[in-house]
Amino acid sequence: MKNAYIISTGTELLLGTTQDSNSVFLASKLMELGIRVIGKSTVGDNHEQLRRAFTVGIESADVIISTGGLGPTFDDLTKIVACEIMGCRLELRTVEEQKLRHYFASRNRPMPDINLRQAMFPVDAKVLKNTQGTAPGMYLCKNGKILILLPGPPREMTNMYLNEVEPLLKKDFGYDMPKVIRKNIKILGLGESQVEERLSELMNCSEGCSIALLAADGEVHICLAIEDTGAHSSLDLLNDLTAKMVEKMGKNVFAYDDETLVSKVARLLMERGSHLAVAESCTGGLLSKIITDIPGSSAYFWGGVISYSNAAKQLWLGVKEETLLRYGAVSPETAREMAEGLRQSAGTDFALSITGIAGPDGGSTDKPVGLVYIALAFEGGCEVRELKFGNGRDFIRILSAKSALDLLRRHMEY
Amino acid sequence: MKNAYIISTGTELLLGTTQDSNSVFLASKLMELGIRVIGKSTVGDNHEQLRRAFTVGIESADVIISTGGLGPTFDDLTKIVACEIMGCRLELRTVEEQKLRHYFASRNRPMPDINLRQAMFPVDAKVLKNTQGTAPGMYLCKNGKILILLPGPPREMTNMYLNEVEPLLKKDFGYDMPKVIRKNIKILGLGESQVEERLSELMNCSEGCSIALLAADGEVHICLAIEDTGAHSSLDLLNDLTAKMVEKMGKNVFAYDDETLVSKVARLLMERGSHLAVAESCTGGLLSKIITDIPGSSAYFWGGVISYSNAAKQLWLGVKEETLLRYGAVSPETAREMAEGLRQSAGTDFALSITGIAGPDGGSTDKPVGLVYIALAFEGGCEVRELKFGNGRDFIRILSAKSALDLLRRHMEY
Repeated sequence: MKNAYIISTGTELLLGTTQDSNSVFLASKLMELGIRVIGKSTVGDNHEQLRRAFTVGIESADVIISTGGLGPTFDDLTKIVACEIMGCRLELRTVEEQKLRHYFASRNRPMPDINLRQAMFPVDAKVLKNTQGTAPGMYLCKNGKILILLPGPPREMTNMYLNEVEPLLKKDFGYDMPKVIRKNIKILGLGESQVEERLSELMNCSEGCSIALLAADGEVHICLAIEDTGAHSSLDLLNDLTAKMVEKMGKNVFAYDDETLVSKVARLLMERGSHLAVAESCTGGLLSKIITDIPGSSAYFWGGVISYSNAAKQLWLGVKEETLLRYGAVSPETAREMAEGLRQSAGTDFALSITGIAGPDGGSTDKPVGLVYIALAFEGGCEVRELKFGNGRDFIRILSAKSALDLLRRHMEY
Repeated sequence: MKNAYIISTGTELLLGTTQDSNSVFLASKLMELGIRVIGKSTVGDNHEQLRRAFTVGIESADVIISTGGLGPTFDDLTKIVACEIMGCRLELRTVEEQKLRHYFASRNRPMPDINLRQAMFPVDAKVLKNTQGTAPGMYLCKNGKILILLPGPPREMTNMYLNEVEPLLKKDFGYDMPKVIRKNIKILGLGESQVEERLSELMNCSEGCSIALLAADGEVHICLAIEDTGAHSSLDLLNDLTAKMVEKMGKNVFAYDDETLVSKVARLLMERGSHLAVAESCTGGLLSKIITDIPGSSAYFWGGVISYSNAAKQLWLGVKEETLLRYGAVSPETAREMAEGLRQSAGTDFALSITGIAGPDGGSTDKPVGLVYIALAFEGGCEVRELKFGNGRDFIRILSAKSALDLLRRHMEY
């Protein structure tokens, strides 16, 4: 598998105001060709920093792609530095010079001499046409390395990559480029280290397959990738490994690949033709928001209540005053009455409720910040769960909403 | 001026699917301290690539900050590699070990041995507390360089930077850092080019002051910055310029500096001792979610209804069937009945309602995607506004929620 290194140049990328979308685009496109990005570097318009970045790139990757620094001004150094490191001399190309002169003449503007730099290239480089601006790009194969210089403005860069670079890479690497097949196993209910422990025995039967764990907002994703040799064996190995991993993770696996927790729940609800209503206290609308992020959610989402005050719990959900006084708003009893009361008044198949203490204030020794109760009311019953989270208000709210969705997911799936 | 180099680690950052928001945050915060980022590097969980990145960082900058790779698993290599390059040995800290054991014990989970790695640090390093997760960070001054290791999840990283790293950097670099004073004027209700047009006359009296416009999610921010020479003149110039700009922008200015639209509304509600309830259709909980993002919002937020279905509008808000049949769910009449019905049943001072077509489906010639009605019911009246947005479901939902908050803000403020 070929490797690539991406260099983004431009002082504006270091000020903390601009996202570097170019490198994300390039990484995803290269991946499609089976070229793996092993590193990225962002540098200002600084000779020494550029030199270091190109040196690392050339030492570690087969393909080095840079964006930016191809303009005509004194601080556009990319081509000069890159060619210096590749050991190439820049020479004036008359064809390119004529194009530049024509560009300026057609706009009735004099061409500053400094612009001639844009017409200079090493003898053996291919010049890449810029249909969206003046700075041409460059493609050079030398000493087994491919050096590609692209302009910085995203529209110019993406057009040049798609029209000029991609066909050249396909040609130079032929059709024998290894493709990668992937599987993403998504887990809720186990911590990252628990997942790793359960995986440990499988590590030795995963030869040829790269395994990465990604943990975010309570989910753990097992990301599997294997080179597609065209033979059945790679796909078989991936499927086999996936099946073994899923067995180890049990019901905690909620989805694969691009499916998310909420889209999985949406799919299960639609397959059954079921409707859902929700009652939220500490999550304050977050669960409803996540559900309605999905276009078309009105097909299965009836609506909900943000019962942020006790009065709202009584008025809309029929929670008894006695329950609130005796057990408190954050209690399994209140969670149950919220879900059951909601299901009754809304007339839906399912009703989820969440009540808890998201903090930072409002906790006590008995009921600390992070204590949350969720309940699912369904035909003939109601399940209530106690949850304990640390880690701050946002985390508590997100995990509470996800746990409620997961309670419904498990109920429908098993 | 001091220099910094940022290293972001994590294979997921190289796949072309994830933006590295951490390095953008860090660059902007370091800039505030007068520390300039001269380069950034992104690498996978790979020993050799990490080594190269830390080597470049240490060779070229005074401060080296990395994010990611501090987890407990086999592919979390950052601390090991960084300490190797700094020539430091990792030793087990019993205090950190105890914290970890306590963390697992309090969750009734066994601690895998591999987690002990998170309790190992060089002798002379400061351990940075992670209030949002398990992986502690590290701050090390050695050989005139400052090495800072932060966790990868953005919430953990930003909290650790603000609470732990920023004070240490301020202390280590003393008070001789060049200071900049800033003013941020936040506007809702004018487009970026409208703001620019209104500003144009003021551009020539802004000497010495940098002016940038930032547009995001319907808001336009005018960001003013001036070097603080210690004399009164810079502050006077900034205040004078701010006053002139605010006059040009009128009631569209909703807040300054760190205050957001929702925190401004929260402050106004609390100052009056007023309570708010909300009824949401197309925003599906987003407005409630934004309101309850703020800790302590139960002081003024009563609760709300997600009236995603017509049945919910009738049941909880008392919207008349006739109104729905005659004018439709997306109409000024329905918006008004939602707000008035809600205010009556909840007994709050204010009730906001939102009904609209967020798309991508559900639009018609008469009522296209992006048509939204918002209403504010208050003592003695009700204001209804028609809004038209383009740009897709997420944008329509966010702008609808913000416009509703802004309707309330203008009502309370003027």
